[in-house]
Amino acid sequence: MRLNGVPRRTIEPAADGASVVVLDQTLLPFGVDWRRLASLAEAADAIRTMVVRGAPLIGVTAAYGVALALRGDPSDRGLAAAATTLCATRPTAVNLRTAVERVRRHVAPLPPRERAAAAWSEAAAMADEDVEANAAIGRHGLALLRTVHGRTGGPVRVLTHCNAGWLATVDGGTALAPVYAAFDAGVPVHVFVDETRPRNQGARLTAFELAEHGVPLTLLADNAGGHLLQRGRIDLCLVGADRVAADGAVANKIGTYLKALAAKDAGVPFYVAVPASTIDLACDEGLRDIPIEDRGPAEVLHVEGVDEEGAPRVVRVAPADVAAENPAFDVTPARLVTALVTDRGVVEPARDALRTAFGPGREARA
Amino acid sequence: MRLNGVPRRTIEPAADGASVVVLDQTLLPFGVDWRRLASLAEAADAIRTMVVRGAPLIGVTAAYGVALALRGDPSDRGLAAAATTLCATRPTAVNLRTAVERVRRHVAPLPPRERAAAAWSEAAAMADEDVEANAAIGRHGLALLRTVHGRTGGPVRVLTHCNAGWLATVDGGTALAPVYAAFDAGVPVHVFVDETRPRNQGARLTAFELAEHGVPLTLLADNAGGHLLQRGRIDLCLVGADRVAADGAVANKIGTYLKALAAKDAGVPFYVAVPASTIDLACDEGLRDIPIEDRGPAEVLHVEGVDEEGAPRVVRVAPADVAAENPAFDVTPARLVTALVTDRGVVEPARDALRTAFGPGREARA
Repeated sequence: MRLNGVPRRTIEPAADGASVVVLDQTLLPFGVDWRRLASLAEAADAIRTMVVRGAPLIGVTAAYGVALALRGDPSDRGLAAAATTLCATRPTAVNLRTAVERVRRHVAPLPPRERAAAAWSEAAAMADEDVEANAAIGRHGLALLRTVHGRTGGPVRVLTHCNAGWLATVDGGTALAPVYAAFDAGVPVHVFVDETRPRNQGARLTAFELAEHGVPLTLLADNAGGHLLQRGRIDLCLVGADRVAADGAVANKIGTYLKALAAKDAGVPFYVAVPASTIDLACDEGLRDIPIEDRGPAEVLHVEGVDEEGAPRVVRVAPADVAAENPAFDVTPARLVTALVTDRGVVEPARDALRTAFGPGREARA
Repeated sequence: MRLNGVPRRTIEPAADGASVVVLDQTLLPFGVDWRRLASLAEAADAIRTMVVRGAPLIGVTAAYGVALALRGDPSDRGLAAAATTLCATRPTAVNLRTAVERVRRHVAPLPPRERAAAAWSEAAAMADEDVEANAAIGRHGLALLRTVHGRTGGPVRVLTHCNAGWLATVDGGTALAPVYAAFDAGVPVHVFVDETRPRNQGARLTAFELAEHGVPLTLLADNAGGHLLQRGRIDLCLVGADRVAADGAVANKIGTYLKALAAKDAGVPFYVAVPASTIDLACDEGLRDIPIEDRGPAEVLHVEGVDEEGAPRVVRVAPADVAAENPAFDVTPARLVTALVTDRGVVEPARDALRTAFGPGREARA
């Protein structure tokens, strides 16, 4: 994608293999700045504090984090410690664990002196695979959007929640990949963007990246999507996911479940766009088995923004010392999901279909 | 209710009949201040800018607004102009129109010189009736909460949206009347409060008034309620309404519909607490006939709060110049509403039941 017209990825390795730079997403849309990550601690901190976020991008950052750790300590103990540290940063996204495990498996058989470089190459390969997967999601999703446009003749009105755009990935986006593909192909689209409290990733990130690309958008309070769906003003919902379980249940940003209920009530299709890496067949029942991170009360009690002069400000929006709960994700049961839009095609969110498309031995189909 | 331990109402007339003072709700919870309304323009402005809000309180403020207008111009033309001005301030709440019409009907047959005083008395009577109605809602709702407590033995876990507490009324509250009644009767309650974007009435007002009264509460982002309902952590939902149509459909703060869907999905009762004055049998089908106010993009793009020093601040939370839509209310179909908790008892949200309880000739039952 382009940032101020320049093609960039959200994570870019330095040529010497000694560091990566990441776009600092905690500053967007008010400031565009890059942060250099040169150690395991810096990579883990970037994930934990959401300098990088979005399941695919978290995975690639963690993979580079292993490589950075191995430059300092390439021993078995160093490798194990790096994996433990990185996996502890965010509990819900499966990509994090998958990525760390993939790099660990790749380098564990090697002599310690070769491990850092091998991990680095593997992380780079994962970044490229993410970009390719998102392009494939875009192609498969574009067909769905074309069909809607063919039927209505008007702009395809998409409701999305949180940010599953290029900022959530290395490049291209998951949920927004079909939107960008449609826009670039001349299929008119209009995206209704949930602001996505409490961290406002919709207002801050999705609105930012759609506007940078020139895609028409309307920002909504999270509360408003049900009303628009009910009034026939949305053609389809398109969201990303942090994890899809074997039963087709989808963990995504808190509030996704409410929009899926409203889409069902309105008879509007609800699509979840994910790369194969987000599908976790080892997680049997989503509602039972996916851990839900609670991020503490501060995010609910405070809002970040800029004042009239453009200076960053944090304001408290509730009485001091009020208790608050802050689950970061919820789980949408498969019965509310029309289909998964994946890099391997449009797949039914059901055990058999998921096993057929993503089960053991299917990796080669990607 | 008590404010800093002192019994107050949200609107209090001055003894000379020349002005009223209202608690300025735009400053809460960061500042507690009262505003004097001495003219039609000031009353209309207080309603429009949400210095006063909540359907019942809007109605009483509008009634006093007519009285204030008639002190200046008691002619038929003055009366008609006052009614027009006040009814234009907020389109959704039926209480506004009902209250203005009631005062108009009451004073129109009188000689102009008697009208201002008569309007003043009528407004005062409406304020007292609101307080009595809310006490009755509290009694009827308390029975429901007692039943839950009897079954679970634990605190009754109530999810509420927006503010339908004493700040939304003259005193006592509608949705929160049963909560206060239970708390005061020693039935343990715990209220989960939706923050209620974009104006954050839950975070600012409901959290404030529950905390003032000592009722245990947990603040939630609007996105989180579905997750808590799904996980069996809510015993019942209890919200207010701005209007209930003849078909039992309920207009309330934007986002109410989403919580009603989630309550239905979880098998949790969804109650709407309203005084008879909020039921509008002249409004035949809620989804078709209730106008939905759009309050413009500024409320979505900006958040009000206080900085670390407690100074009021407004921050922008999205890229500049992004389009936003801001419907203030949504309509929840009757099929999602378990029952209406009214001052006349617990009533099914269905045409026949509503006509029986609130139809012509039923006013005397109040």
